[in-house]
Amino acid sequence: MSSQIGKKITVSVFGESHGPAIGMVMDGTPVGIKIDTDYLAAQAARRAPGNDAFATPRKEADKVEFLSGVKDGVTTGAPLTAIIKNSNTHSTDYNNILNCPRPSHADYAAGVHYKGFNDIAGGGHFSGRLTAPLVTAGSILRLYLKSKGIEIGGHICQIGGHIDSRFDPVNVSADTLLKLSSGNTFPLLNEKAKDAMLKEIADAKSAGDSIGGAVEIAVTGLPAGLGGPMFDGAENLISKAVFGIPAVKGIEFGEGFDFCSMRGSEANDQMEIRCGKVACTTNCNGGITGGITNSMPIIFRVAIKPTPSISLPQNTVDLTTNQNTTLSIKGRHDPCIVPRALPAIEAVTAIAIANLLAEEAQN
Amino acid sequence: MSSQIGKKITVSVFGESHGPAIGMVMDGTPVGIKIDTDYLAAQAARRAPGNDAFATPRKEADKVEFLSGVKDGVTTGAPLTAIIKNSNTHSTDYNNILNCPRPSHADYAAGVHYKGFNDIAGGGHFSGRLTAPLVTAGSILRLYLKSKGIEIGGHICQIGGHIDSRFDPVNVSADTLLKLSSGNTFPLLNEKAKDAMLKEIADAKSAGDSIGGAVEIAVTGLPAGLGGPMFDGAENLISKAVFGIPAVKGIEFGEGFDFCSMRGSEANDQMEIRCGKVACTTNCNGGITGGITNSMPIIFRVAIKPTPSISLPQNTVDLTTNQNTTLSIKGRHDPCIVPRALPAIEAVTAIAIANLLAEEAQN
Amino acid sequence: MSSQIGKKITVSVFGESHGPAIGMVMDGTPVGIKIDTDYLAAQAARRAPGNDAFATPRKEADKVEFLSGVKDGVTTGAPLTAIIKNSNTHSTDYNNILNCPRPSHADYAAGVHYKGFNDIAGGGHFSGRLTAPLVTAGSILRLYLKSKGIEIGGHICQIGGHIDSRFDPVNVSADTLLKLSSGNTFPLLNEKAKDAMLKEIADAKSAGDSIGGAVEIAVTGLPAGLGGPMFDGAENLISKAVFGIPAVKGIEFGEGFDFCSMRGSEANDQMEIRCGKVACTTNCNGGITGGITNSMPIIFRVAIKPTPSISLPQNTVDLTTNQNTTLSIKGRHDPCIVPRALPAIEAVTAIAIANLLAEEAQN
Amino acid sequence: MSSQIGKKITVSVFGESHGPAIGMVMDGTPVGIKIDTDYLAAQAARRAPGNDAFATPRKEADKVEFLSGVKDGVTTGAPLTAIIKNSNTHSTDYNNILNCPRPSHADYAAGVHYKGFNDIAGGGHFSGRLTAPLVTAGSILRLYLKSKGIEIGGHICQIGGHIDSRFDPVNVSADTLLKLSSGNTFPLLNEKAKDAMLKEIADAKSAGDSIGGAVEIAVTGLPAGLGGPMFDGAENLISKAVFGIPAVKGIEFGEGFDFCSMRGSEANDQMEIRCGKVACTTNCNGGITGGITNSMPIIFRVAIKPTPSISLPQNTVDLTTNQNTTLSIKGRHDPCIVPRALPAIEAVTAIAIANLLAEEAQN
Repeated sequence: MSSQIGKKITVSVFGESHGPAIGMVMDGTPVGIKIDTDYLAAQAARRAPGNDAFATPRKEADKVEFLSGVKDGVTTGAPLTAIIKNSNTHSTDYNNILNCPRPSHADYAAGVHYKGFNDIAGGGHFSGRLTAPLVTAGSILRLYLKSKGIEIGGHICQIGGHIDSRFDPVNVSADTLLKLSSGNTFPLLNEKAKDAMLKEIADAKSAGDSIGGAVEIAVTGLPAGLGGPMFDGAENLISKAVFGIPAVKGIEFGEGFDFCSMRGSEANDQMEIRCGKVACTTNCNGGITGGITNSMPIIFRVAIKPTPSISLPQNTVDLTTNQNTTLSIKGRHDPCIVPRALPAIEAVTAIAIANLLAEEAQN
Repeated sequence: MSSQIGKKITVSVFGESHGPAIGMVMDGTPVGIKIDTDYLAAQAARRAPGNDAFATPRKEADKVEFLSGVKDGVTTGAPLTAIIKNSNTHSTDYNNILNCPRPSHADYAAGVHYKGFNDIAGGGHFSGRLTAPLVTAGSILRLYLKSKGIEIGGHICQIGGHIDSRFDPVNVSADTLLKLSSGNTFPLLNEKAKDAMLKEIADAKSAGDSIGGAVEIAVTGLPAGLGGPMFDGAENLISKAVFGIPAVKGIEFGEGFDFCSMRGSEANDQMEIRCGKVACTTNCNGGITGGITNSMPIIFRVAIKPTPSISLPQNTVDLTTNQNTTLSIKGRHDPCIVPRALPAIEAVTAIAIANLLAEEAQN
Repeated sequence: MSSQIGKKITVSVFGESHGPAIGMVMDGTPVGIKIDTDYLAAQAARRAPGNDAFATPRKEADKVEFLSGVKDGVTTGAPLTAIIKNSNTHSTDYNNILNCPRPSHADYAAGVHYKGFNDIAGGGHFSGRLTAPLVTAGSILRLYLKSKGIEIGGHICQIGGHIDSRFDPVNVSADTLLKLSSGNTFPLLNEKAKDAMLKEIADAKSAGDSIGGAVEIAVTGLPAGLGGPMFDGAENLISKAVFGIPAVKGIEFGEGFDFCSMRGSEANDQMEIRCGKVACTTNCNGGITGGITNSMPIIFRVAIKPTPSISLPQNTVDLTTNQNTTLSIKGRHDPCIVPRALPAIEAVTAIAIANLLAEEAQN
Repeated sequence: MSSQIGKKITVSVFGESHGPAIGMVMDGTPVGIKIDTDYLAAQAARRAPGNDAFATPRKEADKVEFLSGVKDGVTTGAPLTAIIKNSNTHSTDYNNILNCPRPSHADYAAGVHYKGFNDIAGGGHFSGRLTAPLVTAGSILRLYLKSKGIEIGGHICQIGGHIDSRFDPVNVSADTLLKLSSGNTFPLLNEKAKDAMLKEIADAKSAGDSIGGAVEIAVTGLPAGLGGPMFDGAENLISKAVFGIPAVKGIEFGEGFDFCSMRGSEANDQMEIRCGKVACTTNCNGGITGGITNSMPIIFRVAIKPTPSISLPQNTVDLTTNQNTTLSIKGRHDPCIVPRALPAIEAVTAIAIANLLAEEAQN
């Protein structure tokens, strides 16, 4: 079930970049979620191409059509299906990659996996465009989570060598998260690094190149006790979800890799009674201990590799002749995918969190 | 199914640190694996306590008993069950944590999750001891993978501020991996940092404290094409598995977080025909593109937090009185869990890889 | 995952009778299946309404549109999505059942399950119309199974008190199954009972009533060894699938309930070498022993209750007033659903068999 | 995951008839169930061999040992493991079936499935003995269900041609079910047929033969709304579970196969307000409509084939020579397995019902 995620609330994603439509089916949808179409459109716009200098100029309406599971704008609990029709596709752009896989793309690996039957135009099912239905699914579940007081948000925390501030892991507020995810296509906690980041992207673009980066996500309002030991814990589910977004290559919770050089006495989150409730005075663990939420905000960072599609010439192989060759990738590509990956990562986080919440329910 | 992992080859782990026994059931076991008990013992010994200065002095026989699924030393394909009886338990050591959760341990979160019914002695089901049956399961599957030419191995790549060399991501050999995982309880690629690492651990120990670190894992001999798009890809399954090991807080594939400051032109793995086969000239992606193996070695690093059990006094709360209090953790604890986490991480990697291989099979 | 079936090849069904469209996503689709649109249309026609005297006069084009997973008429292995747009809906026919659940329909139970949020028009997600995408999915997988020499077919074996002959459980041939499932909307092994069956249906119809019946299914060409012990065996998967078709209330394999009065000496399928291969001289077990195929044809029968929608007045309750009331169901309804249920049952059988085959594959 | 059942509460069964031990792991166990060891022993005794004239004389203590998941006699929520050590095994009894599969047993099919690696002694993993840990699991969940007012029970409804009365599908009471399942090894609603049934069994036994039968199960106290459409409905889950019990060959809910000759006007369960609540005046549907419980008792019947192990000589094949041969099965065997299958069927019903309840829970 490779393009499915979630056990109790299952999202199945389908479509190819240049096929008739992309979309998703959500089985196990909670009943009674009021679909706020403005909210959905705002989240979709954050992910949409053509926002800015850093994004591909491909323009699409990306209108979401609901085929099932919604009645009078409210979820019925039956499988919810939403599709987005494709348009504005330039399949001929991809003719030269049919036999010459693009370096660091899925092309070669997918060709072996699917024994050559896969649709390669625009990356086919591996295209970043497939994150659009994920954003639809995630937005619906974010509306559900909001009704439980749970907020998800994120910011760009690194582009090239330029760093944004980090979330205050103890005091990050729902308001901050709301503001970050309200439509800004380049959300930062601190605007200071913005110009340098944008220049880094512009430089990469003018060089026919691309640049990597990272995002940081926070989730507030979670009750303690969600998740479980070993393999269905909060970190397991979130990481499984986040690696579903193309170009993601790393994830770290709380202090993450910084833990390597910390001592327990500084890394441990000591506890206290705050406002009558159990709380931690620090949040190095990013809100999760033993795979289970501990009432502190969930905090994690995600590494995103530079877009593999660059226009500089690259070495590759011609699969028809089994010879070396070079490739110059044409077509429309983002010099930096980080800003558009952010809402997709927030979306799959919402799917993971909604499942953690649903799994916890007990009769 | 919180303590289960794998869809086609499913490992269910059970047991509590101070209960009668711990163990695992493997459903969907490949038939005909010859159980090499020496190999299993060697892998178990790497994880066992009491190896060295850096480990807890608790000594255990950790004898594995097979209850099912093995006949004349060969797997039958029926569910395979292995148990390890507990002994040498000092439950009274844990009396003071019943109501005063240990900072950064699962205690508080698990108490909420299980509504207070969980067994807390020795960490209960959350104890690192539960990785012993995982090592059994992983060792059996490693024997299976070896028969397909697939080798898994790892080394300690960081303790505190001290760094080991990294794997050569293109040329890492099965021989290197075999040597690393053959019984050395402190495997390094380069012995240069060893003394500094051991001193770091000794210093932490003598201070009643603990220290974090990281390990690096490689998998060689994998065919291209294993995995799939989106959510059941190689990175998704491996990360879901690895976060099942206590104290793991981050994972990165290939260049991981270093991708953030790389350009596409340096990050992309260009391709060539090598010895008549498609190969990459670099391996920044750690052997996985689009969630699918691309014939290069899989390479990833895992961040491990400092052992939360330290003897220094810490602030916590008394759940019976809802008041602040302090706690000094007694009992036997590792000042650095990294060396013992390594074979456990290799083991769950084997479970993930064996499932990727099994899922790929087609009629 | 209530509207999903299959572990390795997963079919997710969606849609409501009177919504914009119904459809299905098949994840894990085998690659390289050539979509024979004539075959798909012929199977769809068998299930379509308006075939005959016994069926509802609702006429629909039921044109299948592929949104993903198919390229140049061949499956790519990526999730395959097919939708069928709804048209010709008379939602006003259902106004009176909003508050007065129809006896023996899902109305009341579904209303509780979905807390009143479900779409009730035309039965919503519980409508028999949802079997149309199942027939699409099943037809695609039947093409795949045909390429492996596996054929599925069935006949009406009972309508009211009238009985058709049974399959010869040992010698039933692929040719017989092909002929039965080639487009005949009232397939029988022996035409003798046809007139009496049709009269039974006509009588029920003219009385404003409905009539039940049964179908018998056979699967030929299966290798021995598919399935497994206990809970993922062939009988478990087939029965789980078949109870997904509305109105199914019983299933029996081989001699089924007739085993109750048999002795072992007559019920046991004795074995012999036939044409150099292991075979059974009888097939009382319907091709499955210990949950595993034994090389004999799979044979099972399925009981189908009379259509609950009848025009005769019935007692029900008014949920708004909590009072007793009576209901006369209007709208278009089949006096006997058995002929249309048959291709749907064959379709889900194909999904179950394709999964058994896929699960058996081993590296 | 062939020997696993349940999605939220997952029971993994393991062991071979003549191995060291059999057992089960229950992951997702509800917390706080008080293990009533007398109740567990009483249920185990109903399934145990040697009860009566109709059962095999093999005597076993069948002592259940808990390895995990229970603390002070109460479930902790962590995976619960129970084992039963094997003893009193006569493996030499099975020497002659190694190469000559017993007709209608799993021997041949399993041998192909497991490529000859399976353990055949006593039927190995396919032995009816594996139902012992299922009875343990089911008994624990029955204690849980009892605390919610849900009762499960059953009776022998047919042996050979002799029939017991059926449950009153509308008024069957928890008291009746309690009485039936309280320890009587041959429970009937009406004792009238008992002598004829016992004589039927005795006759089969003295002829070296065996006899089939059927059981009827009822579940009372269920709320409406459990289950769901299509493939995870109550009928799907129960049938998948029940076909896990060896020798089961058919299942029918409510009127089942009798629906085939009924008209809708007699088959439909008309509705009324009874004691202020929505109820049905009849219960032909056996408590389930549209896959969802409708507040009426669940009623179903299960067909059980005659024990395939008979001492009369039978034709089989010698797999080493590929020649026909004959086989006389020695060893200890039940002339009628129906009485011992009954508590096993009740047990898996409990697992299915507990999962339906757990799945329904919502935050």
